[in-house]
Amino acid sequence: MTTGYVFHPEYLWHDTGTSAGVVLANPAAGIAPAVHIENPEAKRRVHELIHAPGLLGELMIIEPRRATVAELLRVHTEAYVQHIKTQSDLHGGGDAGDGYSPVGHGSYDIARLAAGGLIELVTAAVHGDITNGYALVRPPGHHATADAGMGFCLFNSIAVAARHAQAELGLARIAVVDWDAHHGNGTQAIFYDDPSVLTISLHQANCFPPDSGWTTENGVGEGAGYALNVPLPPGSGHAAYLHAMHQVVLPALNRFAPDLILLANGFDAGVFDPMARQMLTAASYREMTRLLIDAADRLCHGRLVAAHEGGYSPFYTPYCALAFLEELAATTTHVTDPLAVVVAGYAAEPLTPQQQAAIGEATQLVSRLHSRVTTS
Amino acid sequence: MTTGYVFHPEYLWHDTGTSAGVVLANPAAGIAPAVHIENPEAKRRVHELIHAPGLLGELMIIEPRRATVAELLRVHTEAYVQHIKTQSDLHGGGDAGDGYSPVGHGSYDIARLAAGGLIELVTAAVHGDITNGYALVRPPGHHATADAGMGFCLFNSIAVAARHAQAELGLARIAVVDWDAHHGNGTQAIFYDDPSVLTISLHQANCFPPDSGWTTENGVGEGAGYALNVPLPPGSGHAAYLHAMHQVVLPALNRFAPDLILLANGFDAGVFDPMARQMLTAASYREMTRLLIDAADRLCHGRLVAAHEGGYSPFYTPYCALAFLEELAATTTHVTDPLAVVVAGYAAEPLTPQQQAAIGEATQLVSRLHSRVTTS
Amino acid sequence: MTTGYVFHPEYLWHDTGTSAGVVLANPAAGIAPAVHIENPEAKRRVHELIHAPGLLGELMIIEPRRATVAELLRVHTEAYVQHIKTQSDLHGGGDAGDGYSPVGHGSYDIARLAAGGLIELVTAAVHGDITNGYALVRPPGHHATADAGMGFCLFNSIAVAARHAQAELGLARIAVVDWDAHHGNGTQAIFYDDPSVLTISLHQANCFPPDSGWTTENGVGEGAGYALNVPLPPGSGHAAYLHAMHQVVLPALNRFAPDLILLANGFDAGVFDPMARQMLTAASYREMTRLLIDAADRLCHGRLVAAHEGGYSPFYTPYCALAFLEELAATTTHVTDPLAVVVAGYAAEPLTPQQQAAIGEATQLVSRLHSRVTTS
Amino acid sequence: MTTGYVFHPEYLWHDTGTSAGVVLANPAAGIAPAVHIENPEAKRRVHELIHAPGLLGELMIIEPRRATVAELLRVHTEAYVQHIKTQSDLHGGGDAGDGYSPVGHGSYDIARLAAGGLIELVTAAVHGDITNGYALVRPPGHHATADAGMGFCLFNSIAVAARHAQAELGLARIAVVDWDAHHGNGTQAIFYDDPSVLTISLHQANCFPPDSGWTTENGVGEGAGYALNVPLPPGSGHAAYLHAMHQVVLPALNRFAPDLILLANGFDAGVFDPMARQMLTAASYREMTRLLIDAADRLCHGRLVAAHEGGYSPFYTPYCALAFLEELAATTTHVTDPLAVVVAGYAAEPLTPQQQAAIGEATQLVSRLHSRVTTS
Ligand SMILES: [Zn+2]
Ligand SMILES: [Zn+2]
Ligand SMILES: [Zn+2]
Ligand SMILES: [Zn+2]
Repeated sequence: MTTGYVFHPEYLWHDTGTSAGVVLANPAAGIAPAVHIENPEAKRRVHELIHAPGLLGELMIIEPRRATVAELLRVHTEAYVQHIKTQSDLHGGGDAGDGYSPVGHGSYDIARLAAGGLIELVTAAVHGDITNGYALVRPPGHHATADAGMGFCLFNSIAVAARHAQAELGLARIAVVDWDAHHGNGTQAIFYDDPSVLTISLHQANCFPPDSGWTTENGVGEGAGYALNVPLPPGSGHAAYLHAMHQVVLPALNRFAPDLILLANGFDAGVFDPMARQMLTAASYREMTRLLIDAADRLCHGRLVAAHEGGYSPFYTPYCALAFLEELAATTTHVTDPLAVVVAGYAAEPLTPQQQAAIGEATQLVSRLHSRVTTS
Repeated sequence: MTTGYVFHPEYLWHDTGTSAGVVLANPAAGIAPAVHIENPEAKRRVHELIHAPGLLGELMIIEPRRATVAELLRVHTEAYVQHIKTQSDLHGGGDAGDGYSPVGHGSYDIARLAAGGLIELVTAAVHGDITNGYALVRPPGHHATADAGMGFCLFNSIAVAARHAQAELGLARIAVVDWDAHHGNGTQAIFYDDPSVLTISLHQANCFPPDSGWTTENGVGEGAGYALNVPLPPGSGHAAYLHAMHQVVLPALNRFAPDLILLANGFDAGVFDPMARQMLTAASYREMTRLLIDAADRLCHGRLVAAHEGGYSPFYTPYCALAFLEELAATTTHVTDPLAVVVAGYAAEPLTPQQQAAIGEATQLVSRLHSRVTTS
Repeated sequence: MTTGYVFHPEYLWHDTGTSAGVVLANPAAGIAPAVHIENPEAKRRVHELIHAPGLLGELMIIEPRRATVAELLRVHTEAYVQHIKTQSDLHGGGDAGDGYSPVGHGSYDIARLAAGGLIELVTAAVHGDITNGYALVRPPGHHATADAGMGFCLFNSIAVAARHAQAELGLARIAVVDWDAHHGNGTQAIFYDDPSVLTISLHQANCFPPDSGWTTENGVGEGAGYALNVPLPPGSGHAAYLHAMHQVVLPALNRFAPDLILLANGFDAGVFDPMARQMLTAASYREMTRLLIDAADRLCHGRLVAAHEGGYSPFYTPYCALAFLEELAATTTHVTDPLAVVVAGYAAEPLTPQQQAAIGEATQLVSRLHSRVTTS
Repeated sequence: MTTGYVFHPEYLWHDTGTSAGVVLANPAAGIAPAVHIENPEAKRRVHELIHAPGLLGELMIIEPRRATVAELLRVHTEAYVQHIKTQSDLHGGGDAGDGYSPVGHGSYDIARLAAGGLIELVTAAVHGDITNGYALVRPPGHHATADAGMGFCLFNSIAVAARHAQAELGLARIAVVDWDAHHGNGTQAIFYDDPSVLTISLHQANCFPPDSGWTTENGVGEGAGYALNVPLPPGSGHAAYLHAMHQVVLPALNRFAPDLILLANGFDAGVFDPMARQMLTAASYREMTRLLIDAADRLCHGRLVAAHEGGYSPFYTPYCALAFLEELAATTTHVTDPLAVVVAGYAAEPLTPQQQAAIGEATQLVSRLHSRVTTS
C-alpha cells in the first residue's frame, strides 16, 4: 500500500493579498489592511509537519503539473476560465467573483497547478502506483461552479479531476465526499443532474454559501437522488459527524459503489476554526478517515484521493491534517495532537436531538440511491 | 454624558511569545513556533478603529497607572503576586500558572498597568468625571483567581477595581456582568461567598475552563445566590444571548440594584472567533450594550465600566468593539460592520429548545437574589 | 516652546500590499508574495514609542486634514493627481509610476491626509501655536515630482506644504533639508528654477534614484545655486554627516536665511536600514537635529517642521525618531537607544578622504548662494 | 557531477523569539516585542525558491541527523554544550552567551541537527556521492567559539564538520572560506594554532564582533599564517570582493592545497541586508561561487561544501542563494534576480583606494603560507 502526496511551493504563493479577513481593505470605510483568512500559513505548517517527523519520507511524491485549458473546460465555461486569467494578469490581482475570493497576480497558473496536481494524483491511483493520496493544494476549489468563483475558490479541482478520471482513465462512477465545514455547492452544482458522480456534503447549516446545502437539494433529472446534504447545526462536533458518517455517508457509498472516492478535505470543521462553528478534533478526523479508508477498501480498491479545501487555524489544522495523513498512510509519527487534552471535553459531547434530526432527514434520502450492491 | 477611555501602548507590548496558538513551541514534539492567540493584533486594530473615524476625539482619555501591590493584594495572594513578578523577571518570560498563559518579560508591570487603568476608570466614573467607560487593556483578567493565573489572565483587573471601589470610593454593591465566551471563573471564585458583588457570566457551556460555569455554581455562605451562570450550548448566537440578557441579566441587575456595573467585555463570542463557537455579531453586541446602558441608567447613574477581556479575531473584534463603544458614547461613526451582510443569516437564527432550556435554568435562580428594589 | 505632532491611523493603513520587498509578487518568475519594505511596521513602532514613555503628552497634537485638490495642484499636474486617484480606486490598488510605488485601495485619500497634515503643521508653526513639529506620515513624498510618483512616494507633501506656506501664510523663502538616505529628487525638481525654495539633500551617492543627486545638479535659471546636493559614498556615517552639516547645510542655511525650514526626515541613513548603506545612529540623528534647531532658532523663530520620509528598520528607526523628537521638544524620556552599545564602534569611524572630497565639492557651491545675511 | 542539499523543517523551527531585531523585548525600557532579525523567513524563502523552479529535483537530498555530543566535543567544551542544553530546556528558552543569541525551547537539538547535517554533507562529498553541496541550516555557527555562543550562533557547525572530516574521513588539510559579512571569529579561534585548517574571512571591518577580524590576526604557534582576514570598509561591493577573491582567497587556497573547502556561506554582504553595509548582488555571489568551484576543481576534486550562515533580507537573500546554488549545481533555472536592474549601479562601482589598501594588506600575508603546490 502506497500513499501519494502532491505539494508545490507555488501553492503557498497563491496571493490572497491584504484583505481584512475576507473583506477588501478600505481605509475610508474603516477597514484596515490585514491578511486574508485564506493565506498560506496553515498549509505551510501542514507541509512542514508532514516533513519534519519523517512522514514525508514514507509517501510517494507525485509531481503536479498545470491542468490544461481543455481539462478545465470539462467543468468550467470558457468565459470563466478566461475571467480568471484576466484577473490573474492584473497588476494587483483581482477577484474570482464574489468579492471575497482574491485572484493574485499569477494565480491562474497556480490554480491550474492545483487542478493538475489532483489529476496526477488520481491518475497515479487509477494506475495503481498509489493506493490513496493527498493533494495539499491552494487555492481551494469546492465552492467554484462552472461559471463562478466564490468562497476563496477559483477552479473546482475535484470536479476537474473527476471528469478527467471518467474521460481519460475509464472510471464510471465517482463519489465526492465533502467534509469541509461549508457546503460543497460548486461540486454539487456541476454534477447536479449527473448520476455518475455522487456528491455528499457534511457542513454547517446555512453557513456558506448562505441558504445553500439543505437536504432538499437532492439532484435533478437523471441526477435526482445523487446529491446528498447533511446540514449540521452550528456547534456540531465529534458525535454528530460520526453519526452522519455512519448513517449517511457510508450507506450512500455502499449503495453507490464508486470506482473512486474523492474527498473535499476541509479542516475548517475543526474546533478552533475561525470560519465555522463546528467542533471536530484531530481524533475526529482520524476516525472519520478510518471509515472512509475502509469504505474505499471495500468498494474501490482503496482508491481514496483527497484535495485540501478549507482549514484556517494555523495552529490546529496541521494536527488534523497529520492525523488524516497518518491514517491514510497506515502509519504513525511521534507527533500527537498537543491540544488533545484541551479539546477532550468538546469531543465527548453527546449527540443533541437537533443534530439527530438533521442527520435523520438526510438518512431518509439515502434509500433514493439506486443500490448497485444489492443487484449484484 | 461623557465616556472614558483607557489605553496605553504597553498593553500591546505584553509579550505572549511564540506559542503555537496556545501551546508552547516544542520542535521535538512537532510544535513549530508561531504566535500566541492572545496577541496584540486584535486590540491594536480596535484602538486604531476607535481613533481613525474620530471616535477617540469624543472620549475622555483617562491615563492609566500601575496598580500598587497593596491594591492587588485586595484580591490576590502575596505568593501569587510574587510569582507573576518572578516569572516576569525571567529572561524569556514565564507562565502565570496553567502553561497557556505567558508572562512576558516585564508583563508584571503591564498587568499592573491594566488593573490600575481600570481603577482609574472606575474612579473617574464614581467621581462623576465620566458616566461610563472602556479600558482596552491587555493582559485580560477574568480567569485569574486569587492565587492562580490561567486562560491568558494574570491579574484579575475587574476584581481589583471592584474591591478598590468598595474600599476607597464608598460603593457598596457591585455587579459584574461577564459576556466573554468563556466562564468568568476567576471573578466568580473571588467573590463566591460575598453578597456585595454579584457575578453573572454568560458563556459557552463547558468550554474554558473545562467543567466550570454550570448553573449549579451559585455562590456559597453569605454569597449564596450571588453567582449566576448561563452556560449556553456551542453555536449560540444573537437570539440566545438576547434571551439571556432579558431573562437573567436584567432581572438580576434589577433585583441587586448595584452601585456600579463592571463588564468583563470579551468579544470572543463573536461569530468568527477561533477560541469559542458562539455566533454573536457586531449588531448583537450593540444591542446587548444598549440593554446594559439602560440598566445602568436606571440603577446606578449610568455607571457602566468595561474591561476588555477576550476577542481573538483580528478582523471582526474591532467592529464588535466599535459597536460597543459607539453605543456607550451614544454616538455613531461612519464605519459600519463590513461583514454585516455575511453574518446576517447567522444573526437571524431562532432560539433553539436546548438554548431555551439552558437559559431557563438560570432564570430560576434569579429569584434567589434578595430584591432591593421591591423592599424600597 | 511647543512642539506639534501630526499622526493618524490612516497613515498606517496606506496599503503597499504583498510585494517582495519592492518588486511585485510574481510566482511564475519565482517572486513569492511577501511584504513591501515600505510598510506600517516601523512607523507604528515610532508612534507607540512616542506615546508609551509619555512624550506624546508633552506635544501639541495637530489634527490632519486631507489636502484639497487645489492645494495639490500647486505642485502636481492635474493629470498626475487624477492618475493617483484612478490607481487608488482600483480593486487591488495600482502604482504611482515606477512599479515600486504601490497605491493601495484608498491611498489617494491617505496621501492627501499626509500632505494636509503637513500643511496644518506648518500653519500652526507660522501662526505661532507651535515652534516646531513632526508629521509622522505615510506615504512618503520626497521622490515624487510634479507629474510622476516613484520610490514609494505619491504626493510630495513637503513641496505642497512649502507652496501653501508661500501662497497662504505669507512666507517668502523656505529651505528644505533632506537627510533621507536617498536623493530628494522630487522636491529638487519641483523647485529647480525657483530661488525662493532652497533644497539641500544629503544622501548616498548614486543609490536612488540611480544617477541622481550629483553636486552638478545645482538649480537652473533664477534657481541656479538653490539646489544643493551632497552625495556621500556608501558606508558614510556619523563623521561624514556631521561634517556635511557643518560644511554645507548650516552655511547654506545661514546665507539663505529662510523663513521656515522643512525637513525631509528619513531615517534610512540609519546603520541597520535595508534600503541604504549608511551608518547613522540615534545619537547621530540627535546631534544633527540639534544643529538644525539652532539654525532655525537663529534664522526663523525656531520654525523647523519635519515630515517623515524613509526609514525601514522596524527595530532601529523608532530610536532614531525618538532621539529626533526628544531634541525637537527639548525634553528626554527614560528610553535610550538599546543598540547604542552595539553601534558605538560604527559611530566612532573617522572621516575618510573619499567622504571629505565628496563634501568638499558641495561646500564649494554654498558660496554661489546669494547671502542675505551679509547684505543686512 | 552531483550537488548535495541538506534541509529540514526543524531548521526553520529554531525559535529566536520576540526580540526587537537583536535586543530582548523590554517594555519598561521602551523595547516593544517584535521579531528577531535571525528568524526563519529568509531561509524559508530560500528553500521554497530552490524547490519551486525545479532546482530541488536536480539535487541529491542528504538527510541530516543530530550531531552526537562526542562530535560536538571535538570543537566545543563540555561545559558549553551543557550550557546550550540547559538554556534549550528552559520554558521560554535562553541565550547562547552574549544576550543577542536566543536559544529557543528545543534549539539544542536543532543546533545538533545543523551540525549533523553538515557532517553528513561532508561525508557524502568525501565518499564521492556528491561533488559539492549546500546545507541550508539554522542556527548559524561561525561566531561560536569553543566555549561561547554569540552573534546568533550556537554550535560551530563548520568547525564540527571539519574536525569530523579529519577524524573520521581521513582528510588532512581543510580550508574554510567565510564570506559572511561578519568576521568568522569563532571558526578562526577554534583553529587559530592549527596549520591543518586554513581560515580566510572576508568581512566588513569592525562590524561584528567589534574589534575583531583585523589582518593582524594571523594565527599563532604552528598555526601562524593560517588565519587570514580581509576587513573591507563599509560600503564595499562587487569590485572589492572580487578583488579580494583574486588577490587573497584564490592564491591562499592555491598555496594551501586543501583536501576540502568549507564555505561559511553568509548572504549578509548583500546590498539590502540590514545587518551589514556591504553591496554584493546575486551576480556577485554567482561570480564568487564560480571562482571557488574552479579552485575546488583544481585543488580537491571539486569538494566545496557550504553551510548557510547569515543573510537577513527576506526579499534578496533568496536570489543570492539561488545564484550560488545554480552555480554549484552547474545549472540554471528560469528565475533571475528581479532586483538586478535596481542594483546594477551599485555593482558597477569601481574599487576605491581604501578598499584596495585593505585588500593589499591581506595580500601580503598570503606568502606566509607554506606553499604545497610549488614543493610538489
Ligand atoms: Zn470551508
Ligand atoms: Zn474568553
Ligand atoms: Zn529614503
Ligand atoms: Zn553575518
